[in-house]
Amino acid sequence: MLKVPDHQVAGHQAGDGKLGSLIDDSGRFYKPLQGDERGSREVTFYTSFSSNTRIPDHIRRFFPVFYGTQLIEASDGSGLLPHLVLQDLVSGRLNPSIMDIKIGSRTWAPQASNDYIEKCLKKDRETSSLPLGFRISGLQIYVSKELGFWKPERTSFQRLSADNVRLVLRKFVSSNTSAESDSEPDCSFASIVYGGSTGILAQLLELKSWFEDQTIYHFYSCSVLLTYEKELALKGRIPGAEFKLIDFAHVVEGGGVIDHNFLGGLCSLIKFISEILTTPDECTSKASPKDSGENRLWSGNANNE
Amino acid sequence: MLKVPDHQVAGHQAGDGKLGSLIDDSGRFYKPLQGDERGSREVTFYTSFSSNTRIPDHIRRFFPVFYGTQLIEASDGSGLLPHLVLQDLVSGRLNPSIMDIKIGSRTWAPQASNDYIEKCLKKDRETSSLPLGFRISGLQIYVSKELGFWKPERTSFQRLSADNVRLVLRKFVSSNTSAESDSEPDCSFASIVYGGSTGILAQLLELKSWFEDQTIYHFYSCSVLLTYEKELALKGRIPGAEFKLIDFAHVVEGGGVIDHNFLGGLCSLIKFISEILTTPDECTSKASPKDSGENRLWSGNANNE
Repeated sequence: MLKVPDHQVAGHQAGDGKLGSLIDDSGRFYKPLQGDERGSREVTFYTSFSSNTRIPDHIRRFFPVFYGTQLIEASDGSGLLPHLVLQDLVSGRLNPSIMDIKIGSRTWAPQASNDYIEKCLKKDRETSSLPLGFRISGLQIYVSKELGFWKPERTSFQRLSADNVRLVLRKFVSSNTSAESDSEPDCSFASIVYGGSTGILAQLLELKSWFEDQTIYHFYSCSVLLTYEKELALKGRIPGAEFKLIDFAHVVEGGGVIDHNFLGGLCSLIKFISEILTTPDECTSKASPKDSGENRLWSGNANNE
Repeated sequence: MLKVPDHQVAGHQAGDGKLGSLIDDSGRFYKPLQGDERGSREVTFYTSFSSNTRIPDHIRRFFPVFYGTQLIEASDGSGLLPHLVLQDLVSGRLNPSIMDIKIGSRTWAPQASNDYIEKCLKKDRETSSLPLGFRISGLQIYVSKELGFWKPERTSFQRLSADNVRLVLRKFVSSNTSAESDSEPDCSFASIVYGGSTGILAQLLELKSWFEDQTIYHFYSCSVLLTYEKELALKGRIPGAEFKLIDFAHVVEGGGVIDHNFLGGLCSLIKFISEILTTPDECTSKASPKDSGENRLWSGNANNE
């Protein structure tokens, strides 16, 4: 009844006897609780958030539905383990294009331990988090029935320069994206995925308004997960572009202060996406890889899972 | 002809044979150039900014006028030294209330040296920069003709909790502020200093709009300097509330990315000021000092200069 998800792009992945998340056929996602405080903090967050009457409905829809916790057989065969039971965000999708973007130039809370801060700061400096205020931490783009998905190695996209992050964000909404292709992304679907009154940009701007005001939670190391169905876009239909916030193992109380770290990173992502919509013709003018190291991203193999 | 400024609240201060800034009678402020790269970066910034045609006038007014550099006799008697020649921001003010607020949870640029990052990070963690996204780094509040200014020790207000930052921001616009006073700040002038169509909040929101879009500069360790004339407010007149951005020794090129660090801190400050305007009756409900260490701020002596 439980199985390994087809479309997980980041986080611990089950399979080959490893511990990871599982899904069922009814649209639920089972995430094993990390034994340390990360697990308890994520349960605390979901419990608090799901019962908090100050969260408006138009914001609540950006979070996965929480069904509680449940003891289930762990994917690594180690026996019964408590799992968060959440909404499976790609249930009902056939071939979802997915991007996981970790928001914030700082992935650690002020009250974290020195060791943890040092570890995170090192990674924030090595990746695009520090300069851009976010980093892409998971990616799969549907190419075609024959070629399946383009799913580059995780390590290849976390350290991208601004220009190459721009290029990935453009490839994400292009009809001519494939591992082999060196062609300029055509941004065919930018206007229906990022743009429009119900597109990703409009949704992110709603989230931004809330973050300018809310002082309840600070979301360190949390991601926005963008999804859409490219096959629908290819057929000229509405591709169901949406995002959800995920990963709350490092959420802390806001203490009456806005989450300026998340908000800053969110505004930076909004600016990148806005530029794609306002300058579709300059699709790649700013997006030439600057060093050969970064070119590795563009030579990965399509991963037809 | 050149003299030590009466109303400097932060930065290196001249007097007693020390090197610091000077002013003249024509409204100019002479800031000695720091010999290391900080000096050259600040000159580079002012030179670039003053000739940059992409800066709209309604934003340019938030920056001091730049008159170039000039060799003048240093205040410490060490001989001729190059100085930045800038607009004296309190020229023409009689008894200005002034607050210097350093913006950003991070005061260091990604490309800074490891030693510099370590030093700044330590201070950002010790002060309110990291939790609040800004720290008060200079303060004088006019009390009365008899008592002069309340000018607490610099070290006393950099480490304030959110509650006590809120309290300082309220005291700044109150008629009953004095060193001796334990009374609740009355926020008498909040609506004419922070509020209104030309008040500080409206100005900060204009600046925020620009920061959501501009990708030219990143302003690390830069301050907003709020000023107004309390005596005018006491007489029911318009108190000339305004702010300027100052201190550009750590400005770097934006490289096509918004300054998410400054923007986040600015949004946090905006939220604090908005709350004072929207809940004037709860003037001090959230503002009870939580530990005795912080109470030291409230027992400083009035400094009648």
